[in-house]
Amino acid sequence: MSSSFSTSPESLASSPGSTLLRVPTDNGSNKIRSLRWGILGCGRVSHDFCLAVHSAFGIRDASAPADDKTAPPVIVACASASSASSASSFASRHSIPRSYGSYSALLADPDVDVVYVGTVHRTRLRDATAVISAGKHLVLEKPFALNYEDAVAIVAKAREAGVFCMEGMWTRFFPVLRHVAENVLSDGEEGLGGIVQITSDFHFNTEDSEKYPDSPLYSFKLAGGAAMYVAPYPLHVATMLLGRTPLAISAVGRVDTGTGVDLQASVSLAYPALVPDENKKNDERPRPNVGPLASLHYGFLTESGETTSILCERGRITINGPSHCPTSVTVERKLPGRGEKETKTTNFPLPVQCGAVAEGDGETMEYFYPNSAGFAYEAAAVCRHIAAGKLEAPECPLDDTLAVMKILDEVRKQIGMDIPKEAEI
Amino acid sequence: MSSSFSTSPESLASSPGSTLLRVPTDNGSNKIRSLRWGILGCGRVSHDFCLAVHSAFGIRDASAPADDKTAPPVIVACASASSASSASSFASRHSIPRSYGSYSALLADPDVDVVYVGTVHRTRLRDATAVISAGKHLVLEKPFALNYEDAVAIVAKAREAGVFCMEGMWTRFFPVLRHVAENVLSDGEEGLGGIVQITSDFHFNTEDSEKYPDSPLYSFKLAGGAAMYVAPYPLHVATMLLGRTPLAISAVGRVDTGTGVDLQASVSLAYPALVPDENKKNDERPRPNVGPLASLHYGFLTESGETTSILCERGRITINGPSHCPTSVTVERKLPGRGEKETKTTNFPLPVQCGAVAEGDGETMEYFYPNSAGFAYEAAAVCRHIAAGKLEAPECPLDDTLAVMKILDEVRKQIGMDIPKEAEI
Repeated sequence: MSSSFSTSPESLASSPGSTLLRVPTDNGSNKIRSLRWGILGCGRVSHDFCLAVHSAFGIRDASAPADDKTAPPVIVACASASSASSASSFASRHSIPRSYGSYSALLADPDVDVVYVGTVHRTRLRDATAVISAGKHLVLEKPFALNYEDAVAIVAKAREAGVFCMEGMWTRFFPVLRHVAENVLSDGEEGLGGIVQITSDFHFNTEDSEKYPDSPLYSFKLAGGAAMYVAPYPLHVATMLLGRTPLAISAVGRVDTGTGVDLQASVSLAYPALVPDENKKNDERPRPNVGPLASLHYGFLTESGETTSILCERGRITINGPSHCPTSVTVERKLPGRGEKETKTTNFPLPVQCGAVAEGDGETMEYFYPNSAGFAYEAAAVCRHIAAGKLEAPECPLDDTLAVMKILDEVRKQIGMDIPKEAEI
Repeated sequence: MSSSFSTSPESLASSPGSTLLRVPTDNGSNKIRSLRWGILGCGRVSHDFCLAVHSAFGIRDASAPADDKTAPPVIVACASASSASSASSFASRHSIPRSYGSYSALLADPDVDVVYVGTVHRTRLRDATAVISAGKHLVLEKPFALNYEDAVAIVAKAREAGVFCMEGMWTRFFPVLRHVAENVLSDGEEGLGGIVQITSDFHFNTEDSEKYPDSPLYSFKLAGGAAMYVAPYPLHVATMLLGRTPLAISAVGRVDTGTGVDLQASVSLAYPALVPDENKKNDERPRPNVGPLASLHYGFLTESGETTSILCERGRITINGPSHCPTSVTVERKLPGRGEKETKTTNFPLPVQCGAVAEGDGETMEYFYPNSAGFAYEAAAVCRHIAAGKLEAPECPLDDTLAVMKILDEVRKQIGMDIPKEAEI
């Protein structure tokens, strides 16, 4: 089976986001072997992950020595716990050399360095523990765990074992988010001042693809519900921009009386002040008792604009929809006078378009989810960090993941949702 | 002093919103005297109100018999409690025949039918009581009162006296809002289904026009604060669309440690189900334990997009900014397939542009606030309703005003703001 690629990695260098795809050498060593990935779970998200990595970096022979400049990802194995044949079919479709009918078999493969876990939610703790115990590095697709307690256990195990560990919160690796965090907000270059309020939303309409009540999205026992499927996106944005410890968490929400899963919520968060009072001109501006606020909402029952808006003292940053996998940002800098402003939109095109990879038989593979080509940003970052000997990704630290899980528990508690416990289901 | 008008009332008939400006006859009577307005308070909001009414309907002689088709508004008197000369100057600038140096003098004028109260917040209860006691109809600019208790007292007095009474929540009279309430949402013609979630925001940046801490916006004793100045807008939208009695109110906010006024809040509301369960196909869709949610935020410290978004089961209605005085609405009807939709934007141009009225000396008067020409919608509706013998405006019922005041008290309580009491300040 042969595959063709419409875009070479080199051609990406001209796009604004391309620098994030470069995988640097490890401190002058000139014989970096490519990071070799195993994939747990052969479902939709694993499909999109593999397609994105292969589209961006090509399909290469894991045993061949890499050049001395880059250590891009290479996918060497996949496993499905339910059937060897579905793993084999997935491997063939994605040009992955090996496939296994059980997770333990893949974890025993000495040629696997890092495992991407794209399995169903229900077994997050079990799967993560197995990966860490096998001494492999770990990228655990979101949600990181079913609840805060399980998340703490996973993080503790990973830190004890000394393996790289990360929640697969791919949004944080999109160039738009890096641009906002590293350029727009960092040094006040744009003159926007401190953050006053952020909003972020993510609703999608399950009617398009999920049948009620059979879909896993609606299954309490499979850890369905909006807190598991969509809430991590707006909550990670808030955590990334405003910190890990909100002073107040306040939520209302809707729980399905038929299945017991949460369907929708509106969450308000108040954060500590970002700037110490002594830096402000206290006599000229108000001195609020708390810092910035976040207004977040998410759910299953409709489709939203999916926008993240960062309102600053003297301007506004809009991460244009779909903001969970964004390709453009608009910065409006306030000028004197109500409503007066200067506007700049910056685009960060995806590295490869959907459906860019053709199968051997000439058919084009497509992504299941919007902008999944952006998985390549995350995969490249993991390669860089592991090559550099890091155990966490600075773009998505484990303490941020724990903070999000803690808020999610509190939100579910406030809206009257029973929080699933992996040990009990 | 002569005045000229760039737009005649007749020319408005061709704009989509123009029907709202027509003032019908009173059940066949053919000698309707124009409704004669008195204005309490000669500040910015009164300036904008008078300019809008005169721009849309012209300046006419109140004693002359009106024609048999319309009874448009006519402004006959204004009063300033602080100085007779400022009232006189306001009257001269606005071609208002009479002016008074005290509110009681205006209320004693037998030629005043209805009083528009555009005074400072502090004396809402006192001013409303005086108007009602004088037997005049009442339009009380928002906020209706400093707290729920005072609002209940005003409504009780008005109902007992049998006078027309209304909060001047002009947003509700804009053609965009009427179009949404009466056409888009009423009969499912657009196939949008029930409301799932609404969002509405209103932040403006006080740095442009208000000095800290001297501005009334920041004065606790003058009933400043965001709940009084900006919160009524998003809260009225939620109340209009989702009802008067949320099941849950949940808020976080920022209070100024210097002045004690509230600066900003994020409010989540959960409402009862809009559609009875028996009308739903219970086996095919989730059955949430509560109805739609609202995510609202507002404040003084930044400028927001000021958008109202109504997410429905199969589509989305965006009241484009500035949504507290909107001139356009975008309806996106969902088509099969994630992200597929049909989009329609409808514009409702303002009746008269800002600055359309020229003073006698050739200078052009300008509005203080955005889209203030839209005050004409409210004024025309009040004329229609009073001519028809109604004591409330169906577009803005008093029970809705009470509902908003009740939520505002609860929000301020939750964010730790002391609620001002008129009797004590």
